[in-house]
Amino acid sequence: MNTITLLIHCPDQKGIIASTTNFIQQKGGNIVYIDQHVDREQNIFFMRLEGEFEAENFSLAILHEEFESTIAKDFGMSWKVYPSEVKPKMAIFVSKYDHCLYDILGRYNSGELNVEIPFIISNHPHLGGIAKNFGIPYHHIPMTKDTKPEAEAKQLELLKSHHVDLIVLARYMQIVSGKLIGEFTNKIINIHHSFLPAFPGAKPYHSAFKRGVKIIGATSHYVTEELDAGPIIEQDIARVSHTHSVKDFIAKGRDLEKIVLSRAIKLHTDRKTMVYDNKTVIFS
Amino acid sequence: MNTITLLIHCPDQKGIIASTTNFIQQKGGNIVYIDQHVDREQNIFFMRLEGEFEAENFSLAILHEEFESTIAKDFGMSWKVYPSEVKPKMAIFVSKYDHCLYDILGRYNSGELNVEIPFIISNHPHLGGIAKNFGIPYHHIPMTKDTKPEAEAKQLELLKSHHVDLIVLARYMQIVSGKLIGEFTNKIINIHHSFLPAFPGAKPYHSAFKRGVKIIGATSHYVTEELDAGPIIEQDIARVSHTHSVKDFIAKGRDLEKIVLSRAIKLHTDRKTMVYDNKTVIFS
Amino acid sequence: MNTITLLIHCPDQKGIIASTTNFIQQKGGNIVYIDQHVDREQNIFFMRLEGEFEAENFSLAILHEEFESTIAKDFGMSWKVYPSEVKPKMAIFVSKYDHCLYDILGRYNSGELNVEIPFIISNHPHLGGIAKNFGIPYHHIPMTKDTKPEAEAKQLELLKSHHVDLIVLARYMQIVSGKLIGEFTNKIINIHHSFLPAFPGAKPYHSAFKRGVKIIGATSHYVTEELDAGPIIEQDIARVSHTHSVKDFIAKGRDLEKIVLSRAIKLHTDRKTMVYDNKTVIFS
Amino acid sequence: MNTITLLIHCPDQKGIIASTTNFIQQKGGNIVYIDQHVDREQNIFFMRLEGEFEAENFSLAILHEEFESTIAKDFGMSWKVYPSEVKPKMAIFVSKYDHCLYDILGRYNSGELNVEIPFIISNHPHLGGIAKNFGIPYHHIPMTKDTKPEAEAKQLELLKSHHVDLIVLARYMQIVSGKLIGEFTNKIINIHHSFLPAFPGAKPYHSAFKRGVKIIGATSHYVTEELDAGPIIEQDIARVSHTHSVKDFIAKGRDLEKIVLSRAIKLHTDRKTMVYDNKTVIFS
Repeated sequence: MNTITLLIHCPDQKGIIASTTNFIQQKGGNIVYIDQHVDREQNIFFMRLEGEFEAENFSLAILHEEFESTIAKDFGMSWKVYPSEVKPKMAIFVSKYDHCLYDILGRYNSGELNVEIPFIISNHPHLGGIAKNFGIPYHHIPMTKDTKPEAEAKQLELLKSHHVDLIVLARYMQIVSGKLIGEFTNKIINIHHSFLPAFPGAKPYHSAFKRGVKIIGATSHYVTEELDAGPIIEQDIARVSHTHSVKDFIAKGRDLEKIVLSRAIKLHTDRKTMVYDNKTVIFS
Repeated sequence: MNTITLLIHCPDQKGIIASTTNFIQQKGGNIVYIDQHVDREQNIFFMRLEGEFEAENFSLAILHEEFESTIAKDFGMSWKVYPSEVKPKMAIFVSKYDHCLYDILGRYNSGELNVEIPFIISNHPHLGGIAKNFGIPYHHIPMTKDTKPEAEAKQLELLKSHHVDLIVLARYMQIVSGKLIGEFTNKIINIHHSFLPAFPGAKPYHSAFKRGVKIIGATSHYVTEELDAGPIIEQDIARVSHTHSVKDFIAKGRDLEKIVLSRAIKLHTDRKTMVYDNKTVIFS
Repeated sequence: MNTITLLIHCPDQKGIIASTTNFIQQKGGNIVYIDQHVDREQNIFFMRLEGEFEAENFSLAILHEEFESTIAKDFGMSWKVYPSEVKPKMAIFVSKYDHCLYDILGRYNSGELNVEIPFIISNHPHLGGIAKNFGIPYHHIPMTKDTKPEAEAKQLELLKSHHVDLIVLARYMQIVSGKLIGEFTNKIINIHHSFLPAFPGAKPYHSAFKRGVKIIGATSHYVTEELDAGPIIEQDIARVSHTHSVKDFIAKGRDLEKIVLSRAIKLHTDRKTMVYDNKTVIFS
Repeated sequence: MNTITLLIHCPDQKGIIASTTNFIQQKGGNIVYIDQHVDREQNIFFMRLEGEFEAENFSLAILHEEFESTIAKDFGMSWKVYPSEVKPKMAIFVSKYDHCLYDILGRYNSGELNVEIPFIISNHPHLGGIAKNFGIPYHHIPMTKDTKPEAEAKQLELLKSHHVDLIVLARYMQIVSGKLIGEFTNKIINIHHSFLPAFPGAKPYHSAFKRGVKIIGATSHYVTEELDAGPIIEQDIARVSHTHSVKDFIAKGRDLEKIVLSRAIKLHTDRKTMVYDNKTVIFS
């Protein structure tokens, strides 16, 4: 059996669901999952659909062409189709913190994440040993103010030569350039160690401590040019009290960061996220 | 516009979604919501669908008859259709505790719950004043071991004469008889003050305290003949510690109970629950 | 038995705990609760202590005088003593929303809150019926831009003539003046319907919706001159998704608001809160 | 400076706190933390106290002897003193699952856990590579029904020869014998993958799935002879729905298990847990 996932969005109008499900059925497919959402304010329709086709009479190319030239055209759809046997290629960017990296690689090892990881990039050498233990190439690309352009050029070359689909910033402590963001729109996931939009930017745990909050958080989001302002994929929180120091916030935060980031990766690579208007639709 | 909600379950098989959505479209309807679930172990398909029809050419009776004799028959469906303009009639059973009652009536008053409340029944007179303040008839039907059969007969008469669709046991401290359960299968919602299946039966907060748990819970479920063993609709929890007494558990529990019960009522009356195999499917 | 609660803060130094506990013992008291906190950054010591004294040989006045002239003086303490038999007097300010008011009054009725409620003040007449049902005087003091000064004068007169200790803004939709804040420093509790410091000011649910957050919150805090920037007492959160409209945020938020506000009231009236440096110490 | 932590419990009576704090002060110590709890039902007093002493005139042996022969004797105390510079020796038992092990070792590496880890014991060879990466000796002690007694004898020998203070069962899939439990009473921490007391024993995720719960949990507890019935240290939960399979429960559960176990280890090794009557007091 061939399984595909369709992600669709278009102006809301009558007949989208019926036409699309009909099309899948006529092509011999069986719909095993369908979920949809309508943004009533902006009148946009979103749909995620999984279909199964028997292998002998299935051609992704034909399905793509026919859907594009009929339904997609009629309804003005933006859409993507993902065959389930193709694993997304995910590059990981790190600096010195290892907790998110361990968490991702642990899940990767256990089969929880349906991805390939062609390499890890870091501006520091420190985490090379972990990469080695998990058998993943580690590229140490140092980055100073002066070398940033050429370092990013090297990064981009690696990303392109490996046909990377997704970049995960696993506590990567560098601002990603607009060029990279432009090439990987809605394909770079960052973990920010605060409950956005509270405490964007540097040292959020210090700011949270100073403000005397009773709950801290972490936020995974797609990276956009404006710092920590991209579409939010997932958030979670932990309780704190006056007994906790900034150091305690940081320790508790590590647990949040790794889990919130890994959830976002799982959602993205399972093709359950759609982005519009700087927000996300997250299918179940 | 007429809006209807369809709830369907049947053996899983190819073509259910396409056929159903097609039918709605052919009848002039627009699908504004669709969600489905397949239980892979038991091979059962579940679907919730909302459709909008223009009022002039819509007949619920015709739609019902045609769907029943075609799609529903072909796929062996169990199904229900609910026109959105008909509000479910919900009876509330209480004893002496008032926190759940206040919470339900507050939401009812604010328009959060799409129900009619024809009356409140209690085995005690205590909460009559609250009912009066909210303008809802209150029937005090005392119940002793000896008078239970005739008291239940009175309850049933009230329920039937008002065509009640749903019974909510809002901390009602009597065991409901098998007869009533039989007449209202999957239509009686109870709130149990523990995290089921832990601590069923009487005095769960005392048992939780004795066991030294660090988290307590509340569970709303459909009532079945086996005590506290029916299909779970919703659960939630609160943290406790060694500093909390049983009395503290009870106070914290009140907050859980009222919110968990009201969420279950909302889910049921929005037609978002389906029951099978002593479990629930809860649509979003 | 007479029970008292001591709240103390002073510069951190050696011997505070031993000296204080010694003093209580010498006065014939038994310490039934002690908790302390040291802010290491600012070198401030905080303590909450409950002591029991046999009634015959106990004088609050003498204890106060002796502690003040010895221990408190030696260590430079700011301190307060609260005899447990004196209930704090709590005034409630409301506008039109009733969910927080119902929640507070329900807890008050059930004995969960150890307070007296001398009256409710509102700038609208709408909630007078609820006040009446609970047997609490309701003062409707209309407030327009022009009448604000004299309306506040009336409020202040009521507050003073009833020796009010605490003001609770239960979704009171007016900015409280600096004069009132000055007279009731750290004695006015507000509920803000966001996860502060995110979304201060007006329409936080609308802002949260626009930003696409996955979690919303509510924050209870002491009122200071800067809007929504006072010391945080308690916060809690609820999950939301793309399927929720602003209206859904508001409905979910109501559940948060009422519980977070009631928790803050309970903490304050149980003398478990201390304020310093625009933060709170919350004893367990 | 020398820092010590005292853990005390005894029958509740007047003067314990004052006498103890006085003693510390007279020995030249400064109390930097004190927290106490009274179980009113059983009339037991618990206290945790941290004191700082200047190194020159501090002797742990003398303090121990004097406290024992005076205060401890007078009040009938069970008590322990822990000098903070002595790290507890913690052995880890594992089988094949690696998620808890990775989590513990990651925290150990980052300095979050104040322990020594003399070795890891496993009944399988699989996780030896991880141990090696972290530089910790790994003892593969196979265990069949027949070899259990001698395998346990080997375990015990290792534990004793290294003066192990704490055993952590990090998803160790063997029942620990009564002999080992007897030698390490309240010194063996297990992680059980359910919200105890729900679903003790084998395959809790399968049972939770079958029961249709909406929340799953994990519980860390001290091991006693009765399976999964020992004193609970920490619990946490995650939401599930009808869309989750048993496999999803297991994946979500992994995140719970590792965090709940690591929290329990942290609490124990920070000397913040006390056990009585099959329950725990957890100091903050």
